[in-house]
Amino acid sequence: MGITITAEHSAAEVRAAQGPKIARKASMNDRFLRACRRETVDCTPVWLMRQAGRYMVEYRKLREKYTILEIIKTPELAVEVTMQPINAFDLDAAIIFADILPPLEAMGLSLEFIRGEGPVIHNPLRIAADVDALKVPDPRESLSFTMEAIRQTQRELDGRVPLIGFSGAPFTLASYAIEGGATRSFVLTKSLIYNQPEAWHDLMDKLATMVGDYLKAQAEAGAQVLQLFDSWAGALSPADYRRYVLPYSQRALQVAQSSGVPVIHFGTGTSGMLELIKEAGGDVIGVDWRVNLADAWDRLGEDVAIQGNLDPVALFAPIPELERHVTNILAQAGGRPGHIFNLGHGILPQTPVEHVAALVAMVHELSRR
Amino acid sequence: MGITITAEHSAAEVRAAQGPKIARKASMNDRFLRACRRETVDCTPVWLMRQAGRYMVEYRKLREKYTILEIIKTPELAVEVTMQPINAFDLDAAIIFADILPPLEAMGLSLEFIRGEGPVIHNPLRIAADVDALKVPDPRESLSFTMEAIRQTQRELDGRVPLIGFSGAPFTLASYAIEGGATRSFVLTKSLIYNQPEAWHDLMDKLATMVGDYLKAQAEAGAQVLQLFDSWAGALSPADYRRYVLPYSQRALQVAQSSGVPVIHFGTGTSGMLELIKEAGGDVIGVDWRVNLADAWDRLGEDVAIQGNLDPVALFAPIPELERHVTNILAQAGGRPGHIFNLGHGILPQTPVEHVAALVAMVHELSRR
Repeated sequence: MGITITAEHSAAEVRAAQGPKIARKASMNDRFLRACRRETVDCTPVWLMRQAGRYMVEYRKLREKYTILEIIKTPELAVEVTMQPINAFDLDAAIIFADILPPLEAMGLSLEFIRGEGPVIHNPLRIAADVDALKVPDPRESLSFTMEAIRQTQRELDGRVPLIGFSGAPFTLASYAIEGGATRSFVLTKSLIYNQPEAWHDLMDKLATMVGDYLKAQAEAGAQVLQLFDSWAGALSPADYRRYVLPYSQRALQVAQSSGVPVIHFGTGTSGMLELIKEAGGDVIGVDWRVNLADAWDRLGEDVAIQGNLDPVALFAPIPELERHVTNILAQAGGRPGHIFNLGHGILPQTPVEHVAALVAMVHELSRR
Repeated sequence: MGITITAEHSAAEVRAAQGPKIARKASMNDRFLRACRRETVDCTPVWLMRQAGRYMVEYRKLREKYTILEIIKTPELAVEVTMQPINAFDLDAAIIFADILPPLEAMGLSLEFIRGEGPVIHNPLRIAADVDALKVPDPRESLSFTMEAIRQTQRELDGRVPLIGFSGAPFTLASYAIEGGATRSFVLTKSLIYNQPEAWHDLMDKLATMVGDYLKAQAEAGAQVLQLFDSWAGALSPADYRRYVLPYSQRALQVAQSSGVPVIHFGTGTSGMLELIKEAGGDVIGVDWRVNLADAWDRLGEDVAIQGNLDPVALFAPIPELERHVTNILAQAGGRPGHIFNLGHGILPQTPVEHVAALVAMVHELSRR
């Protein structure tokens, strides 16, 4: 790809480094930003969670040479991967290539991505002393590689589309920190909640601080929209979510929103508690495919935008069936301002890349006002 | 445990074998049956999905000598396991020890339970010809061991509590048959749905016939309530559920209900489509913990009973926290007739057994009218 550092770019970098008051170049394609603010658009904006990733041959090629963490921690590589889907498809937003787990590493946990197994935390949290030992470092320093990747990506994008920054939400991060990896049952996480509630609240307090600050730092570095990924919030009952999670997501979201950019609050399996997800905050609520988008939006109310909600596996369908799914979702959104088309969760590694191109074109074409 | 075959028992067995018109001994404890029919009860009935299983030392001891399939296929052992929780706790219903997958074996698939991995189908369905090759045998013969276990358990129970028979639902069975085991993404299942819809409908047609007949056969053998487990229905969007699944669950449920016993229709992750689960059928709708029980019941309407919905991991909480969860759920049910207390999914292997005893006592005590 190759990044040419010009005088102009360096000036932008200097401004970015100075803090939140950087002048962001207005995006030429602003329909994503307009939808976040529930303004009218020429057609529905679309981006895809994990749009930079394994389904693209360009990404897999890079992964032959570098680990995930190497790519994340080398701004030039993170920029390259961030740009891959932007160069390949007519997407309406870029999302910085990173992962939800590096903040845990910055806080003192030992993180490794093991091929075929996914992320592993080698020293998971089990007792109050483990929580006490967690640091809450300044993400501008401890995660400076992502801030730098954001600055460099903005130069590379040069206003083509807006750039999204993101963070895992306190609950989702806590579950990885406690379980030591992915889990189906969340037994260790919930056991800690129920049996050591003080340690839980201390942990969530630290995570809320870290996450809020991390999101804000990304906006300062140039991210124009922020997304909070509470991917596993749906593991909880609504009552437990309200008691043990909501206050911390709320705090992180408030700090993120104080940066002045729109914030997307996303979760999966949240059909039973959309009202609580909204109460926690966010300008845009991201929903998965397990709920009818119209029903979800009716429950959330029209004072928030909505993002979603194609089943990622619909991308494995023949084009006419894929188009039927897309048409249904657009009909559920009903042309109301504030719909951002996305998948209901991350795009899957085996996804046929030509269907991604077809999907993006289809969303624009079928929603053209 | 030891089963004594008396002249009376043999006569009952003969009657049972003659078909659906057997005289079932009225249960001494009928509050579960009354709740299924939305009649008033002295206190809320409670049973637990997978109440016979690995969390009990008696079960683990038996599993040292026998595989899961050996226990299921040896009626005396299945009876013994079915009775273990009934003898240990004050539960209001027994559920026959079996598994949802043996019907797939009867249809021609090669099933194995691998320790630490769970169920594996060695010859999963991938193309239309695989579906064509599936048999739809009479469950009275191909799954006679479960019918016999039901008859023997009824003798052993001798009216103490009602006995539940069950089956996996067509979609959940199809997903195992296609994926060859458990899955997170359901990529193969949904790919078959979208890419080979005729093969999918043929498969679901066969499964609906098999499942309906299997449930009916269990009622004929003496099961007093039937439960359809659509554990993975929540993997689907409401639109896909309606189009590709609902008609088949509906048919299986209708056949089950034609036996005259109450039918429970259970799924997890269904908060976004409870109305469709109800439309498919069932006298009782089983919900998981991802929805407030009061909200769920309001949406379902009071013409159905409801079963649920404690998070199975709440059993890992200290007793006061567990009691708080139980109190909340009972308050959500609000004393309306037709609530059956249960977990939102199966009890977990590591569950502390003394908390199970405490839970059962707690439900009865806190709901006593």
